[in-house]
Amino acid sequence: MERTFVKDIRENDQVDGVFWVKEKSMPVSRTGAPYLRLRLADRTGEIEARVWDGAEAFADLFTRDDFIRIKAQATSYQDKIQLNIKSIKKAAEADVRLEDFLASSTRDPDEMLAELIAIGQGIENPFLKQLIMAFLENEEFTVRFKRAPGAKRLHHSFLGGLLEHTLSVVQLIEKLKGYYEGINHDLLLAGGVLHDVAKVYELSYERSFDYTDAGRLIGHIVMGVEMVDKEIAQIEGFPTELAMLMKHLLLSHHGQYEWGSPTRPMTLEAQMLHHLDDLDAKVNGIKEFMNKVEQGTRWTDYHRMFERFFYVGEGEEG
Amino acid sequence: MERTFVKDIRENDQVDGVFWVKEKSMPVSRTGAPYLRLRLADRTGEIEARVWDGAEAFADLFTRDDFIRIKAQATSYQDKIQLNIKSIKKAAEADVRLEDFLASSTRDPDEMLAELIAIGQGIENPFLKQLIMAFLENEEFTVRFKRAPGAKRLHHSFLGGLLEHTLSVVQLIEKLKGYYEGINHDLLLAGGVLHDVAKVYELSYERSFDYTDAGRLIGHIVMGVEMVDKEIAQIEGFPTELAMLMKHLLLSHHGQYEWGSPTRPMTLEAQMLHHLDDLDAKVNGIKEFMNKVEQGTRWTDYHRMFERFFYVGEGEEG
Amino acid sequence: MERTFVKDIRENDQVDGVFWVKEKSMPVSRTGAPYLRLRLADRTGEIEARVWDGAEAFADLFTRDDFIRIKAQATSYQDKIQLNIKSIKKAAEADVRLEDFLASSTRDPDEMLAELIAIGQGIENPFLKQLIMAFLENEEFTVRFKRAPGAKRLHHSFLGGLLEHTLSVVQLIEKLKGYYEGINHDLLLAGGVLHDVAKVYELSYERSFDYTDAGRLIGHIVMGVEMVDKEIAQIEGFPTELAMLMKHLLLSHHGQYEWGSPTRPMTLEAQMLHHLDDLDAKVNGIKEFMNKVEQGTRWTDYHRMFERFFYVGEGEEG
Amino acid sequence: MERTFVKDIRENDQVDGVFWVKEKSMPVSRTGAPYLRLRLADRTGEIEARVWDGAEAFADLFTRDDFIRIKAQATSYQDKIQLNIKSIKKAAEADVRLEDFLASSTRDPDEMLAELIAIGQGIENPFLKQLIMAFLENEEFTVRFKRAPGAKRLHHSFLGGLLEHTLSVVQLIEKLKGYYEGINHDLLLAGGVLHDVAKVYELSYERSFDYTDAGRLIGHIVMGVEMVDKEIAQIEGFPTELAMLMKHLLLSHHGQYEWGSPTRPMTLEAQMLHHLDDLDAKVNGIKEFMNKVEQGTRWTDYHRMFERFFYVGEGEEG
Amino acid sequence: MERTFVKDIRENDQVDGVFWVKEKSMPVSRTGAPYLRLRLADRTGEIEARVWDGAEAFADLFTRDDFIRIKAQATSYQDKIQLNIKSIKKAAEADVRLEDFLASSTRDPDEMLAELIAIGQGIENPFLKQLIMAFLENEEFTVRFKRAPGAKRLHHSFLGGLLEHTLSVVQLIEKLKGYYEGINHDLLLAGGVLHDVAKVYELSYERSFDYTDAGRLIGHIVMGVEMVDKEIAQIEGFPTELAMLMKHLLLSHHGQYEWGSPTRPMTLEAQMLHHLDDLDAKVNGIKEFMNKVEQGTRWTDYHRMFERFFYVGEGEEG
Amino acid sequence: MERTFVKDIRENDQVDGVFWVKEKSMPVSRTGAPYLRLRLADRTGEIEARVWDGAEAFADLFTRDDFIRIKAQATSYQDKIQLNIKSIKKAAEADVRLEDFLASSTRDPDEMLAELIAIGQGIENPFLKQLIMAFLENEEFTVRFKRAPGAKRLHHSFLGGLLEHTLSVVQLIEKLKGYYEGINHDLLLAGGVLHDVAKVYELSYERSFDYTDAGRLIGHIVMGVEMVDKEIAQIEGFPTELAMLMKHLLLSHHGQYEWGSPTRPMTLEAQMLHHLDDLDAKVNGIKEFMNKVEQGTRWTDYHRMFERFFYVGEGEEG
Repeated sequence: MERTFVKDIRENDQVDGVFWVKEKSMPVSRTGAPYLRLRLADRTGEIEARVWDGAEAFADLFTRDDFIRIKAQATSYQDKIQLNIKSIKKAAEADVRLEDFLASSTRDPDEMLAELIAIGQGIENPFLKQLIMAFLENEEFTVRFKRAPGAKRLHHSFLGGLLEHTLSVVQLIEKLKGYYEGINHDLLLAGGVLHDVAKVYELSYERSFDYTDAGRLIGHIVMGVEMVDKEIAQIEGFPTELAMLMKHLLLSHHGQYEWGSPTRPMTLEAQMLHHLDDLDAKVNGIKEFMNKVEQGTRWTDYHRMFERFFYVGEGEEG
Repeated sequence: MERTFVKDIRENDQVDGVFWVKEKSMPVSRTGAPYLRLRLADRTGEIEARVWDGAEAFADLFTRDDFIRIKAQATSYQDKIQLNIKSIKKAAEADVRLEDFLASSTRDPDEMLAELIAIGQGIENPFLKQLIMAFLENEEFTVRFKRAPGAKRLHHSFLGGLLEHTLSVVQLIEKLKGYYEGINHDLLLAGGVLHDVAKVYELSYERSFDYTDAGRLIGHIVMGVEMVDKEIAQIEGFPTELAMLMKHLLLSHHGQYEWGSPTRPMTLEAQMLHHLDDLDAKVNGIKEFMNKVEQGTRWTDYHRMFERFFYVGEGEEG
Repeated sequence: MERTFVKDIRENDQVDGVFWVKEKSMPVSRTGAPYLRLRLADRTGEIEARVWDGAEAFADLFTRDDFIRIKAQATSYQDKIQLNIKSIKKAAEADVRLEDFLASSTRDPDEMLAELIAIGQGIENPFLKQLIMAFLENEEFTVRFKRAPGAKRLHHSFLGGLLEHTLSVVQLIEKLKGYYEGINHDLLLAGGVLHDVAKVYELSYERSFDYTDAGRLIGHIVMGVEMVDKEIAQIEGFPTELAMLMKHLLLSHHGQYEWGSPTRPMTLEAQMLHHLDDLDAKVNGIKEFMNKVEQGTRWTDYHRMFERFFYVGEGEEG
Repeated sequence: MERTFVKDIRENDQVDGVFWVKEKSMPVSRTGAPYLRLRLADRTGEIEARVWDGAEAFADLFTRDDFIRIKAQATSYQDKIQLNIKSIKKAAEADVRLEDFLASSTRDPDEMLAELIAIGQGIENPFLKQLIMAFLENEEFTVRFKRAPGAKRLHHSFLGGLLEHTLSVVQLIEKLKGYYEGINHDLLLAGGVLHDVAKVYELSYERSFDYTDAGRLIGHIVMGVEMVDKEIAQIEGFPTELAMLMKHLLLSHHGQYEWGSPTRPMTLEAQMLHHLDDLDAKVNGIKEFMNKVEQGTRWTDYHRMFERFFYVGEGEEG
Repeated sequence: MERTFVKDIRENDQVDGVFWVKEKSMPVSRTGAPYLRLRLADRTGEIEARVWDGAEAFADLFTRDDFIRIKAQATSYQDKIQLNIKSIKKAAEADVRLEDFLASSTRDPDEMLAELIAIGQGIENPFLKQLIMAFLENEEFTVRFKRAPGAKRLHHSFLGGLLEHTLSVVQLIEKLKGYYEGINHDLLLAGGVLHDVAKVYELSYERSFDYTDAGRLIGHIVMGVEMVDKEIAQIEGFPTELAMLMKHLLLSHHGQYEWGSPTRPMTLEAQMLHHLDDLDAKVNGIKEFMNKVEQGTRWTDYHRMFERFFYVGEGEEG
Repeated sequence: MERTFVKDIRENDQVDGVFWVKEKSMPVSRTGAPYLRLRLADRTGEIEARVWDGAEAFADLFTRDDFIRIKAQATSYQDKIQLNIKSIKKAAEADVRLEDFLASSTRDPDEMLAELIAIGQGIENPFLKQLIMAFLENEEFTVRFKRAPGAKRLHHSFLGGLLEHTLSVVQLIEKLKGYYEGINHDLLLAGGVLHDVAKVYELSYERSFDYTDAGRLIGHIVMGVEMVDKEIAQIEGFPTELAMLMKHLLLSHHGQYEWGSPTRPMTLEAQMLHHLDDLDAKVNGIKEFMNKVEQGTRWTDYHRMFERFFYVGEGEEG
């Protein structure tokens, strides 16, 4: 059966489908009876829903953040569509298609991963190659890596975004191979592959994009160093200085203290990585923001993080 | 005759050569007689010099910032070498080799200009191509362009540095051609060629690198817009929007108000240009700074603008 | 016929008049039929409006930002007044009185312009006098100059505000004539006249106050330099240094990089202009903000740009 | 007898005069004997001095910061003039002319004070007039007020500078009387008179310009409030709100927290006072800085507080 | 009679009780008749109320910020409960229990004050002891001191909060007595007692927590110095330096200009006081913020002043 | 034999002792011959030294940063004492007493460590106790821990300073045990012990205090997390959440991004640790700075990091 998306629900429709419970509460009605108030969502929007009969029994079946399967009728209340729910059950995991709830990369994750591995194969330094392959060929890791978003909100905030961004940074590094003298290309490339590696654990992306506990308390920069430490310990003879320089790349890639890096870039590779990561994140962040503009509008809204409007023009150039 | 450079002058040497007058004053000696106190310089260093006899007559022959030809004897005074000048005359222009006084690019300016023109030829938009050629094929401009430094101090601060940096930014743009969708490559490329064009007038580089009056009071960003305005006015039918976007590239290329840009980048091209300019300036600035380190030192001094030390290591990687 | 202003519309009123279309959309009603949803405005407020019958035909007659003449009935919906529109036609230009839609200066623009010209006549330096008169006696310019606001929001944000502010800065300069030694009064005065001259093109003020494309991408500071450049090119023998100092006044009048000036004031005149412009803008901005306070309130709301409340007191002193 | 100023001392001169002891120490010579090392100063400069014989006895006669009368011979040591002191005695107070040691205003203090009082007489509000006269007619206060500098270094840093600056701010206020509606002119004027009043105690100016203990620990802004509190307590019926507004003027006149004001200006008078104080301080600070430039130099040195160079040009305009 | 709190009002309830008038206006209804629109509040929430009959007569009986006794019926309007008021009279002062309207400390104020006095008795320096007792034993002061909140919003924002915070800072000082050498414990302790003393006048706390006029225009830091000045003037022989150091403690206790301190801490005692005040305010501010979290939530909302989320976890540790 | 300290060397003294080579170069003399120029140092100061004969042979025996044993004669050159070296050999490790070269804590390291362990024994949580004991009972670690300074310059910059500071923070935590409800005391205490643990590797302190490579490229905050990670991995069953909270304490203890913490404190324990660490570092930093003041001086010099002077007064209170 075809899914009915939130944005397509009309007055009087009968709805039978799976939704994500974004908010759940049990207020007392004006007459003193408790009822169940939900905010349900999928990828296309959010909708209010109410259970008037049997509220307490249904309420025990699920918690906020669960996926539920409902039968309901769409009614109109104060000029807005609302769902009047008849029955609820918790959705079976097999019934939930994550893509119905979160935006996804337009590219195939397996293909992107294959490209990344192919570039990684070009690394000559055996320690660095072994290090990145310990990640890229570890299925437990790649399952998450193919799914994680690049950021909660600012850029690549869709399923597969982390991989898409990582691949892009690595491709930029490849394009500049040999351009500046004195760069250790292997090191820079490995840094490109691993710079955001801990975002697979920093962000949660089962229902919506948010931070995990460790994501907030430790942060992906330090979590990345821990992950790299663990793998390096498995590689016999990994040179101490190389390990230090590798970790420096991760630690300094945000470029400044104010942006959460505990050290500033102190090597050419670290400086390069910072610039290329920043370039890719910013350009994509702006493009995603521009894409939200309605047809015919020449300027985006004001972007609060970037502190400016962006010019879309007639759509020819941007 | 071989030039005697400042760094090679030894006690008792007879010196006969051309020097730049960095400082000039006429103090009264302890006994009440005026004498001429000079600080002379060439590319390799600076040296104190004195005229005890006939000071006033010699003093009238030149001013600070002139090049003078002197005959002198090197003496030792308080553990430092000093020149005791016997005669002075103002140097004929033909006698002054600018390369003796200022560091120069290691690359041939004519060759770099040719490369830049070749890339510029690839621009398809006829207005933009005509605009950049109005600069690159104007000999009055290119004479200065081939000589100007990229900055007073921070990066590419040598004769030919502006051209070297411009070419490098343009090459980076070429390398990323087609990488991001939605970029107007012609516009970005023309922006790369012209972004620092007014540095030929912002900086003075006849003796040392410093700002001109207009360089300080107007600044290269706005001077560049004025130069572009003037050329655009000569090109029939140059589209208004294109002119505006072109100038926006120049105005926003420093990326932030605090760095002297009166507008922030509001188009994808402007954002790209800012990143690539910044990347090239920073990487070269760091490399020039690293090169000043003595053999065997593992760290540079503290860099006050960048607010950090840089790691040179064993010299293998950086 | 007397205009019915938005703030005076009552339930059941029949409305026949010209309004500005602030928002326009064509949603689908709960039953699936498209209808026309408008937000109409004049100087006194905004009001929701709906077209239920013939929505699609009417929708083709105008776009957002147009002025339209409507016939409608006022109804009450959820405790708010809404217009139920029967017919729409695009308003003829002659039917639109801009003063009905935008706040205006309380002073007569022609009178203010005459005062400004009279002061300008007192400039002794022939080049500077010729320069400012090239603006003040150019009707194409003055038509806009008499109408433009001083800023989008912060101060003098009403029709004629730019002229009112310019005149005020110039009067302050006149009041301080001769007060500080070493000031070139002619230069400062000309700078006062021209400092915000490009706001006639930076802002749009046909319907509401907003930025133009060039206003955002280039900004009034640099646009002003371009306008001055163009006029100076027409004046034979205009001294180079004077032109440079004149442009420096425009470029530095915001006083700091963070406030959008690409150079800081480096001459006494530039420093003076910055202070007097700032004084006039701030004092008027605060007064306009204080005037919004209801009778009997002793403090204004929190002003986010100024980061403070203002004390109005009993109304005796402020 | 004519004073010999430091700048005029030549080798072999016999010096007999009063100097200020800027530094005093008693090191051990290379051979192990203690000697007295002094740094002496007057308004024209500083000079090293030594006592080789009887150092210990002389050392007991005075401390650092005293004025001493010496007899000495000028000798040359390592290309610098040094005083070889034969005898020292502490200078009698009558022998010390403060003007020999500190720069002074070019205007007559009594005359400036008279002008200030004359303007103050124009205040109509009896409480405010009484308040300022409590200062201006109190001789204990005016003795200091006529002598105090305007600031340690940044502007009006000469004897009489505080009065000169205060008068200037008050004159600016007078010039703008009635210019903006809604300003309580009496309040603003009184604020102008008193805004820096505590600088008479914040700074010490007996020998050089520095801060007093209270100047650092309390600061002139709060000390001023304390002084005003004390006088207001003597004036029967002084209105509470007026006192509060008066003190607000003092507290907020630096305009921002970062500049040491514990509150931001929240009334029109406070905003005006801040701007006019800032204008007068900055313009004079720049002029004093420009005056240090040698004849023929077109730019000042870099000003660290203002973060820029200033353009002096040919001396015609600045 | 038991009070009916706002949060407990249900549809159709008859309400008879005292409420605080948070907002009051007299709009014209859709049909043109004026009616009275109120927003009433107590400690548990706010509620809309309307008077349709006799609006004008009732309106004259009270103003915004008054307490009123009403008789009304609860109705439901657009899914919200609203009061339909039948009669209003101004509440007698005796009828108003402040605790019904503002949150209160969980500790008994008299007990806290007694503890504070007991600690204060331990001060050995007779001047300092006399100074603090002039406050703590002055009933006019302590009546307010026992009631005032610690801050408008950020920490200890409840009745009695100022006393609770003051006692806590003083207890911290006691705990560290003798820990660091070179601290004048008596001075630090007296500083702890008096550091926020003027908050009794800076904030108003009769109905809600807000700033008084003087609180905004002068601020508690300077008001505190004025209060201390006044008491010191009553104490014969109070040493000048001690008074200065005491006031320095008050002035610098915010630690930085940006946080409203006109001087930075320049003594060890001032530095200590700043840290301990900050510690107590921050820890309590965070705890109060954590307490607002619903059961089962592992993170607080984003705290805008602290710029972060706080981790509550399973409730075991925080 | 008694050591001759640098500060005691007099003209003509014969010196035979061990010194640290702070600088070493081989310039060419005025006559063209190479000589050896050294800057030697011990804890009391620095002194210039020269080798004129056999310079090249001696130069091969040691490098900068070595300890050397010299025989030399003290001569006077330009009013300064200089060493004329006759012979050099590299010092045997046994000949070098580190205390002669670096300042040391006044407390006995073993005693301090014993105190720290005693407090640590009081931790009830078995995992946390095991964790800190893994450090405090590991001799390889404690050898360094007893010697490391607390910081390069700002506070506790002496041998044993790290231990002294750590113990002090832990004692502060003990003093506040139970003071605030809801604090996990065990966690906070363990955080106090480990917060700066990686400073044993961040700083080098064999000759002077400086950063190690890893100290700069990784930093003690992240190095500390790595050290803790490694020990936790050895402890069976260490709870995941506890490990995360422990590491959060280390990461956030600088309190702000700008001070190098990659996360801000998000738990009460983290907030407490930040305050107590800051308090101890600041108070000690100020005391160390005050101690440098000469007898009789009432103010310290300007402290550039703290941006203020400190008041020492008559020495009674500070």
